[in-house]
Parts: sequence; C-alpha cells; structure tokens
Amino acid sequence: MVIAIVQDKDSNRLSQALVESNIRATKLASTGGFLKSGNTTFMIGIEEDRIEGVLALIKENCQSREQVMAPLSSIGGNVESYVPYPVEVQVGGATVFILPIDQFIQF
Amino acid sequence: MVIAIVQDKDSNRLSQALVESNIRATKLASTGGFLKSGNTTFMIGIEEDRIEGVLALIKENCQSREQVMAPLSSIGGNVESYVPYPVEVQVGGATVFILPIDQFIQF
Amino acid sequence: MVIAIVQDKDSNRLSQALVESNIRATKLASTGGFLKSGNTTFMIGIEEDRIEGVLALIKENCQSREQVMAPLSSIGGNVESYVPYPVEVQVGGATVFILPIDQFIQF
Ligand code: NI
Ligand code: NI
Ligand code: NI
Repeated sequence: MVIAIVQDKDSNRLSQALVESNIRATKLASTGGFLKSGNTTFMIGIEEDRIEGVLALIKENCQSREQVMAPLSSIGGNVESYVPYPVEVQVGGATVFILPIDQFIQF
Repeated sequence: MVIAIVQDKDSNRLSQALVESNIRATKLASTGGFLKSGNTTFMIGIEEDRIEGVLALIKENCQSREQVMAPLSSIGGNVESYVPYPVEVQVGGATVFILPIDQFIQF
Repeated sequence: MVIAIVQDKDSNRLSQALVESNIRATKLASTGGFLKSGNTTFMIGIEEDRIEGVLALIKENCQSREQVMAPLSSIGGNVESYVPYPVEVQVGGATVFILPIDQFIQF
C-alpha cells in the first residue's frame, strides 16, 4: 500500500492524474508532518509492479519546488503576508510510505 | 491490521456490528477510492485468528448490492435526480486491506 | 510506521513533544476505538532504532490516568454533567500499532 502525504494545493492535480491512470485512491484530510500547511493523505492499494508508476505520478505532481512569489501576490489561493520584493518560496513536496499488504479484498 | 473503506451509508451499521462483537475500530472520514461518494475508513487492530470474523462482518454489512430505486424516491437520505421509472442502482461495497502488524501496544 | 490513536485532549501535548524531539507526525481526525471521545490518529514514519523513543513520548504524554473531578468542574475544557462530590475519572490512553515499512521516500 502506498501512503502519500501531499500538500493540499497539489492534491487535486494528483487525484486527477491517478484517475487518468485508472488508479483508485482513498483520501484523508490531514495536518502536520514534513509539510507545514494542511495536507492530504492518499491511501493507494496497488499491485507491486505498478508501484513505480504511482511514485512517478506523485513525483511529477507533488515534488518540492521553488516558486517565485511576486510582491503582494498570493500563493495557493491564500493571500500571504506583504512582501515588497519577489522571493522564492518552497512549495509542494510529498512524504511517501510503502507498506506491505497481506491481503486485498473487494466486497 | 484491517483497513476497510466503506460507504458512509453502511458505516453506522458496521460500527454497531463491530461493537456487538466487542471489536474496537477507529474511524476516519475519507473520500474517493473505489466508492464514489463519501466514505469511512475503519482501522481495526485485531488478532490474526479473528480477522475472518471481521471480514464476515464487513461483508454482511457493506457488500455491494443492487437496490431498486422507485420513481422520485431518495437513496441513502439524499434525493437523487428525477427518475420516471424504477431502476436498479449499485450501493455499498467495501475495499479491505489487511496489513501485517509488528507490535500492538496499549498505554 | 507508528500509528498512535490518542485522545484529543492529549493531542497537542504529544504534537509538541514530537516537534521538540524533531519527529515529524501526520495527524488525522478520528473517532471511536478504545477511546470513547474524539481522538487523533498520529502517523509517524520513523527509523526502527528511534521507535522506542517515540513510544516513550506517547506513554509520557498520553498514558491512561485517573483524574479527580471536583464537583461542578469541567474536564478537558468541556463542562461535564453535574456531579455533587469529587469523583475519579479515567482520562487519556493511547492505542499504538507498529507497522513494517517497505520503503520511505521524500519528494
Ligand atoms: Ni533558488
Ligand atoms: Ni440486477
Ligand atoms: Ni483510583
């Protein structure tokens, strides 16, 4: 089972990418962890030979990256505190755990 | 550990069945996954020889089933879009993962 | 991975203790389980040789304990029902699962 904790701002994009790849994910609202703001925990039950593909999707959509924040601009929909000059901020990032599964059942 | 993702409409019934069997479950609100609408994720820490019993309870209370929807009726408390004749809809269903546990501690 | 389910009233204290020990935890709002009231599920990805330390922090901050409830007093911020004499009530407690991890990745 892949457990991925991603920032809320990347959550929709990852959801869509998973749906396009026909991968089902259960989402839980979460807080804390490596990521400072609110985040989303994805639980993805997946066959072992498809884990690499899931990791690639997570990396593609959620990887930690720098974003230039223009003066007085907003990031991720929230108006941040006033900054009089452009600054680089770190956004995104994902914490991923792969747990072994004994059994998967669908009723 | 049994992780079961069930539709919200089956969640209360499963909770009650678990309590009656003296099985403790922690519940988390979740979305997405195989089930389209809102769902509930049950985390159940249980000895290996009782897993079969837990699976039976989940199957009994949550199994995917057809429900005849009468014209203008509502399903699961929500008024669905107008349907002029009775139709069968799929309700319920559970996605279950069994994860190995290294240790269980109660403080 | 350490999964700890603790009472909401102990959640902040545990969060702080983990931060002070430089341990990242993801928190999920949960209900039910061994603990009657609302609780918080901590997911903590940690190297095996640090698990003992995490368990010690959980025990220190969340262990089940008795609390004397004075007449008409409130416990955990909520006004409880009227009690005309001091009584002992059980508070706290933690349910902890340690799950094996196949892989941990940070993007
Ligand atoms: Ni730079
Ligand atoms: Ni039919
Ligand atoms: Ni006593």
